[in-house]
Amino acid sequence: MATGGRGAVVAMAAGSTLSSASVTLFLLLVLPRVSQAQTFFFPFRQPETCGHNQYFDISALSCVACGSNQRQDARGTSCVCLPGFQMISNNGGPDITCKKCPEHMKGVTEDGWNCISCPGGLTAEGKCHCPTGHILVERNVNGTLLSQATCELCDESENSFTVANALGNRCVRCEPAFINTSKSCACSEPNILTGGLCLSSTGNFPLRMISTARYGELGISFTSEWFAKYLQSSAAACWVYGNLTSCQALGNMCVMNMNCYDSSTFDACGLFQFIFENTAALGTVHSVSFWRQNLPWLFYGDQLGLAPQILSTTPLPTNFSFKGENQSTKLKFIAASYDVRGNFLKWQTLEGGILQLCPDTETRLNAAYSFGTTYQQSCEIPVPKILTDFPTPTFYDVYLEYTDENQHQYIWAVPVLNLNLQHKKMFVNKDSSSGKWLLTRRIFLVDTLSGRENDLGSQPRLIRVATQISLSIHLVPNTKNGNIYPPLITIAYRDIDIKDPSSQSVKVSFSVTYEMDQGEAHVQTDIALGVLGGLAVLSSLLKTAGWKRRIGSPMIDLQTVAKFLVYYAGDLANVFFIITVGTGLYWLIVFKAQKSVSVLLPVPAQEKRFVTYVGCGFALKALQFLHKLISQITIDIFFIDWERPKGKVLKAVEGEGGVRSATVPVSIWRTYFVANEWNEIQTVRKINPLFQVLTVLFLLEVVGFKNLALMDSSSSLSRSPPSYIAPYSRILRYAVSSALWLVIGLIQIVFFAVFYERFIEDKIRQFVDLCCMSNISVFLLSHRCFGYYIHGRSVHGHADTNMEEMNMNLKREAENLCSQRGLVPNTDGQTFQIAISSQMRQHYDRIHETLTRKNGPARLLSSSGSTFEQSVKAYHIMNKFLGSFIDHVHKEMDYFIKDKLLLERILGMEFMEPMEKSIFYNDEGYSFSSVLYYGNEATLLIYDLMFFCVVDLACQNFILAAFLTYLQQEIFRFIRDAVGQKNLASKTLVDQRFLI
Amino acid sequence: MATGGRGAVVAMAAGSTLSSASVTLFLLLVLPRVSQAQTFFFPFRQPETCGHNQYFDISALSCVACGSNQRQDARGTSCVCLPGFQMISNNGGPDITCKKCPEHMKGVTEDGWNCISCPGGLTAEGKCHCPTGHILVERNVNGTLLSQATCELCDESENSFTVANALGNRCVRCEPAFINTSKSCACSEPNILTGGLCLSSTGNFPLRMISTARYGELGISFTSEWFAKYLQSSAAACWVYGNLTSCQALGNMCVMNMNCYDSSTFDACGLFQFIFENTAALGTVHSVSFWRQNLPWLFYGDQLGLAPQILSTTPLPTNFSFKGENQSTKLKFIAASYDVRGNFLKWQTLEGGILQLCPDTETRLNAAYSFGTTYQQSCEIPVPKILTDFPTPTFYDVYLEYTDENQHQYIWAVPVLNLNLQHKKMFVNKDSSSGKWLLTRRIFLVDTLSGRENDLGSQPRLIRVATQISLSIHLVPNTKNGNIYPPLITIAYRDIDIKDPSSQSVKVSFSVTYEMDQGEAHVQTDIALGVLGGLAVLSSLLKTAGWKRRIGSPMIDLQTVAKFLVYYAGDLANVFFIITVGTGLYWLIVFKAQKSVSVLLPVPAQEKRFVTYVGCGFALKALQFLHKLISQITIDIFFIDWERPKGKVLKAVEGEGGVRSATVPVSIWRTYFVANEWNEIQTVRKINPLFQVLTVLFLLEVVGFKNLALMDSSSSLSRSPPSYIAPYSRILRYAVSSALWLVIGLIQIVFFAVFYERFIEDKIRQFVDLCCMSNISVFLLSHRCFGYYIHGRSVHGHADTNMEEMNMNLKREAENLCSQRGLVPNTDGQTFQIAISSQMRQHYDRIHETLTRKNGPARLLSSSGSTFEQSVKAYHIMNKFLGSFIDHVHKEMDYFIKDKLLLERILGMEFMEPMEKSIFYNDEGYSFSSVLYYGNEATLLIYDLMFFCVVDLACQNFILAAFLTYLQQEIFRFIRDAVGQKNLASKTLVDQRFLI
Repeated sequence: MATGGRGAVVAMAAGSTLSSASVTLFLLLVLPRVSQAQTFFFPFRQPETCGHNQYFDISALSCVACGSNQRQDARGTSCVCLPGFQMISNNGGPDITCKKCPEHMKGVTEDGWNCISCPGGLTAEGKCHCPTGHILVERNVNGTLLSQATCELCDESENSFTVANALGNRCVRCEPAFINTSKSCACSEPNILTGGLCLSSTGNFPLRMISTARYGELGISFTSEWFAKYLQSSAAACWVYGNLTSCQALGNMCVMNMNCYDSSTFDACGLFQFIFENTAALGTVHSVSFWRQNLPWLFYGDQLGLAPQILSTTPLPTNFSFKGENQSTKLKFIAASYDVRGNFLKWQTLEGGILQLCPDTETRLNAAYSFGTTYQQSCEIPVPKILTDFPTPTFYDVYLEYTDENQHQYIWAVPVLNLNLQHKKMFVNKDSSSGKWLLTRRIFLVDTLSGRENDLGSQPRLIRVATQISLSIHLVPNTKNGNIYPPLITIAYRDIDIKDPSSQSVKVSFSVTYEMDQGEAHVQTDIALGVLGGLAVLSSLLKTAGWKRRIGSPMIDLQTVAKFLVYYAGDLANVFFIITVGTGLYWLIVFKAQKSVSVLLPVPAQEKRFVTYVGCGFALKALQFLHKLISQITIDIFFIDWERPKGKVLKAVEGEGGVRSATVPVSIWRTYFVANEWNEIQTVRKINPLFQVLTVLFLLEVVGFKNLALMDSSSSLSRSPPSYIAPYSRILRYAVSSALWLVIGLIQIVFFAVFYERFIEDKIRQFVDLCCMSNISVFLLSHRCFGYYIHGRSVHGHADTNMEEMNMNLKREAENLCSQRGLVPNTDGQTFQIAISSQMRQHYDRIHETLTRKNGPARLLSSSGSTFEQSVKAYHIMNKFLGSFIDHVHKEMDYFIKDKLLLERILGMEFMEPMEKSIFYNDEGYSFSSVLYYGNEATLLIYDLMFFCVVDLACQNFILAAFLTYLQQEIFRFIRDAVGQKNLASKTLVDQRFLI
Repeated sequence: MATGGRGAVVAMAAGSTLSSASVTLFLLLVLPRVSQAQTFFFPFRQPETCGHNQYFDISALSCVACGSNQRQDARGTSCVCLPGFQMISNNGGPDITCKKCPEHMKGVTEDGWNCISCPGGLTAEGKCHCPTGHILVERNVNGTLLSQATCELCDESENSFTVANALGNRCVRCEPAFINTSKSCACSEPNILTGGLCLSSTGNFPLRMISTARYGELGISFTSEWFAKYLQSSAAACWVYGNLTSCQALGNMCVMNMNCYDSSTFDACGLFQFIFENTAALGTVHSVSFWRQNLPWLFYGDQLGLAPQILSTTPLPTNFSFKGENQSTKLKFIAASYDVRGNFLKWQTLEGGILQLCPDTETRLNAAYSFGTTYQQSCEIPVPKILTDFPTPTFYDVYLEYTDENQHQYIWAVPVLNLNLQHKKMFVNKDSSSGKWLLTRRIFLVDTLSGRENDLGSQPRLIRVATQISLSIHLVPNTKNGNIYPPLITIAYRDIDIKDPSSQSVKVSFSVTYEMDQGEAHVQTDIALGVLGGLAVLSSLLKTAGWKRRIGSPMIDLQTVAKFLVYYAGDLANVFFIITVGTGLYWLIVFKAQKSVSVLLPVPAQEKRFVTYVGCGFALKALQFLHKLISQITIDIFFIDWERPKGKVLKAVEGEGGVRSATVPVSIWRTYFVANEWNEIQTVRKINPLFQVLTVLFLLEVVGFKNLALMDSSSSLSRSPPSYIAPYSRILRYAVSSALWLVIGLIQIVFFAVFYERFIEDKIRQFVDLCCMSNISVFLLSHRCFGYYIHGRSVHGHADTNMEEMNMNLKREAENLCSQRGLVPNTDGQTFQIAISSQMRQHYDRIHETLTRKNGPARLLSSSGSTFEQSVKAYHIMNKFLGSFIDHVHKEMDYFIKDKLLLERILGMEFMEPMEKSIFYNDEGYSFSSVLYYGNEATLLIYDLMFFCVVDLACQNFILAAFLTYLQQEIFRFIRDAVGQKNLASKTLVDQRFLI
């Protein structure tokens, strides 16, 4: 069926001149038949599942029976003859023919093609069997096949020194060690045969004291096959013959034992130390006293206090830089690599991920060695992959390569801090003080070899993996050209008990950190904090003094202390803010802009202090903000209506039939209008806070300013996707976001001040103008005896009028046909800071009491109606009182107007106490806005900034920070608006329904 | 110096009983001296730089001179004796001693330990030299050293068939092929020796027609050593002996040639086809007609139209699902792997990155085979890494494993589309129509072998890398349980000319895509678009008719058509919006929620149509939005002041000494207040648009809703950092963001309607109340003959009064002591839709003309002052006229009040034409808000949404989208506010300075 279909298609393909339409038709007719027959699946067979007399057909991928007298070969993909059968044809693969050997020639030759009679017995495979030490001879020297195979004993005598080779078919010269020791190829007592060497027992070497046990950190102890086999022989070869490879192999075993040694036991490191100490005569290598000729350099010596000296005494004689054409932007690490048997493999650069177990692209892997880039990498690796990739361990001696001024290449040995090292049964390297550390030299990544028990080919019982490798680079203090101390490799190993490898995995990490001694920076910060903190106390004292003056109370009571503390909180918050932003910007600019490296970033642990400062700053700022908010929503305010009734109007009085004259009422709508506007400007700010939040977010996330906060040397705003992305520095995040926030904030303030308020609208000036147009003054008391006054008496006498007159008034004023608006004739000064006398305040309070009595105990009064009437009466009294006060009617409560002294302006307090007369200070700066959001922009801006930064420091998420900043802004604005509105309504008697 | 210092330290360490203080002191004294002496650097030497008679000391890492009569060995790390010198001691490594051989024994044995006299000459190394075919015999069979070495010729005779082995020290049986062909171990003419085989020239095999040239796509042509060596022999062994391995090797060569063949030339594929066609008698494997016994399966046949049939006829007999316990969430690909010589290596699963050249962690690599996860990976790999990692190519036959209902494992052959395949010199697989494709089977990743010229050990002249591998999975149409067609591997190779390998790199990519036939979805979308589009036409026609009625013009002119188009744009925008959101949500919900797979996402190319729809929708919506904005800022509005003067007041007339009565002016401040409030509610919305933007951004980015838009099967909101992150689907991004936008928008609308406007504030209701309190009505004309009327006549007669009276009024109304506010007595209806007669409108226009004449040609008038007076006069006339109109004074312009019919409400048009009398429709829904932002929330919300989505579709960046959405909102709000304010000022004569 299938073939038929196919034939048809072939026929069709041949007739390629047919039109495509008919081809399609043809296809429709024929192809379905093909496809019906064609399926492309078959059973899945593994070679291991084939039977004993089957082979796995590598073409058909299924099991096929072998020919007669045959069975599967070792690989399973071919057949071999059964024992006692000779091969008579072989076309490669499974296609062979076998024939039974005749009775007198039961054996088969090694190549399987001939039958032969054997001198002794047969092996299981049907080949001839010879005793050990003998070789099997099936052919003459010239290849002629013998009819009878023989077993020959190899000549061990003086001149020949031969022994059978591994295959047992040739005599070859035996190992020189045998000949040296025993003058023969046999290793008889008392000599010791170990690891393929024959050792003389007469040497003064502690041969019998070798312990081959291996203890994992898991508490498992067993005999490691590798140590059992080769420890003794390599130690002896190293000691006796000074064999370089054996010495390296011994060193490797010591490293596999985590460099742990105890002078009492002769384990690998004990033997190494024994040899080290007893070969002092050989001299040192490269004048390094820890490096003995012939031996590998494993230890730096176990003196106390040696480690800090090695790590921070001699700087490397080369400079590093972040940028520039010269090649010193790379840390050129190279490693001498050795295999486990001690053979030198090659010099290799650490680039390309030699020490990085986690797979990644070359670019990202190599970023680890780019100077100044803090690097972190971690992942989880399945154990089977480790077992496949690292059948034997490779050992690395790491050096840092550099070139001196004469262009000679030098290498500097990089010390290693192995956290698993035990010295006298103590984990000395886990100690926090570097004085106790024992530095070493050689490292490996994965050891799957020493954990093998009984058989080197079996699966290991446990493996040891370098799970944490960390390279730390220390900058020399006060360097100007990027001098560094020798880098330190810190390495921690983990022992993994192999139980079910396919489900096990191990977490590994690799990191490169850059550190410098931040002590000086800390000291400088502390000094700044001390100095500025002192200034803050001074400033807070002044503020408290000013406040005492303003509330007109000379006593120092608990409230004063509390007030002082609140002012101090605000000032201290500013100090923290200045210090953190200053420090942050210093790091940002100096770190990112330097060419020759002199500054490195604090590591995350060192950042703690900084974060604490920011946290303190924020908490204190929040306190200041809340204090300002509360004082703003409790101010005293009153709108003085200067309008006087226009006259009397005649009204028909019902019932009496006559007319009566009545005063024309003054419309309240102007007051409503002004109150409404005041309500609206309560939360107006000098910037648009939302634009602020979103623009900062936009610049950080979309434009890419957040990339400046990466702990690498690049100062570009973007990173290409395949390049390595370093971790973020919290200090830099703070610096970048606060710098952006301040810059955008300042730009907005300048924009609003220079452009928007001049050409679009200025809510504060509009309000003052409105007061003037509506013939209403605003009397504000922010403290008991201090406040603000906006003079709004209309220059036209009346404002409560119709459109013609209003427009006429506006026009007259525009044409300068009327007097000026100021309180003092012929001046423009409409706004004042006022310091009122205590007497004045008492009077005010007395009237105010009736004004707001409705909030008092209501039961004593007859009805709410009369309360209200009383309030309205009080309103009129207050209106009249304040009007007359301004008009200098009350001689006992007069006031005078003066300019504030410069120092008074600067310190924000008044020197003169309003004893008898109240004082009106000219104030062109509209400082009454300090009871609004508008006048507290700095506090609000910094508070928002710190809120944003604190959220970001906590979560490392700019979007979350922006969202929460927006939310808190909205919530506080809502509170300020709602409570402020309530306060306004209660203080001015304007019904809340008109404050819309 | 160094030793001295060290000694001191050791001494100190011994005296460990010292107090730590004195130790420190001691350290300070002693250690600096140590450190002065100790440096840890030395010159860098590479083993290659050592001289000829030096060796590289692997312990000291420097070059050391060999002993006398010695030179460097091959590896460079040890020494060997010079020729003519025998070794007399060797302790391993470089520590050897050499001695000159005596005159009569010039040669040295192979092992180097003895001197021997040679039969012939000496080799360069000083060993004995034998002619080819001879073996060197230095020892007896039992190992006894001969004093005179001999050269023996191996016995090639009938029974022995031996030949010298590669080392030249033993005679071994020669290859069976030689014996078969020539009955000896020599391959004499006319037989051909090639690739280690001796081929008979008598077979009917086109031996001489083999071409060994290899052409890269770079246009380079040279002789490949591999092909030259092994093509002929493997083809012959396959053809003559049916050798399985040779057949595989021949197949591999064909694959290395990109499966290109031409029936005219006998290159690798030509030979393969020749053998394939001439072994039809052997039968097929697993009844696949393209798979011949003994041969590998390389081709699917070259019939036209075969590919689509293989790819989309038979679904795989297994189901896949996204979730659940059963194991069918993984695509279990396995590959039979072969080495280049044709040996079967093993079955291996593709997991662990077998086909993925880019390095990555196991988890991320294996994500490629998790069903439903669109996978993309690409990187750049340096050429040296490729050369190291892939010394020889490995070949894979890929299968998909599945289990049938009886738990039997089956494998399905996965076809390959090799884009580099040339058939008859045409790149048929690059054709867009699958009908011309030639599917193949076997693939490799990197071939660095066939590009070697002259020498297999040398660096290749060019290498071939699979730079693009893509796996595409097609869902069976209308499946309900995740049935798929056989997957297709598309592979593209690139030839790289190796010139400077260390600086070269190659970009590779791997991807897995899931596709289904989206035809039906397209058809359904088209149907929906057609149906809804038709409805949109209908709706727009109705709207246009309604508009015609409202402007009171029956003619169909150009303006009508334009208006129709604008309405149609709005409706069509809604249609597009509904369709895109509906489709998006359908994909989102159905794709992410399905367990048994029935739907897959469109691939990026298929998304185009969707994106076009969104784009169209946005453009049309923008048009609608702009149209609404423009009509809102050009409405006619007038505030009718019902207040009448309170009477006459007596005024002293200056100069005359008498008194005159004058009317008390009606205060304009109420009008100012109302106008100011109207100005403020212009851009009030039913939602907080900023909260909207930021909350959506927060949910998407921080909460993690954006993870729903990933093209994988997970419906979780978070992904763990080490897991693979699939690419984003633009449709899903649109669906997620629009769904969130709509949900948050609806929640906000409900919150504002149910809670905020009821308990906090309702700006619209407040405005209506304010009108009533201030005795001012609002007369609004949005169209020529249609508009709104807010009845604000105070129920107390007067509102222009002082606080007592205002409060009294409020109280009376609260206590229900006065009449109701409605226009019709004893009703509450304050708001109306009005359809005015043309006559009324003409009258209105006449007055309005004078009102706004100041905008007309000013030159004809004497001064701006008089213009203004005229305007004020007109204002009073208008006030009086509209007041009297409402009071039914004008009999010829009367009106009546009625309820709107239900259908009228639904259609938003009026059925009755206001011919003689104007019509006032009761309107409790405050529908006048439709001339404000407030009444157009739906349009604004959808417009913002589409703006957000369009920016996101273009940039795939939610933050940018949020920022731009915010910016456009602010800009349009500013425009609406500013222009609306100007319009308000010009239409109502309220000075713009009071609209603050």
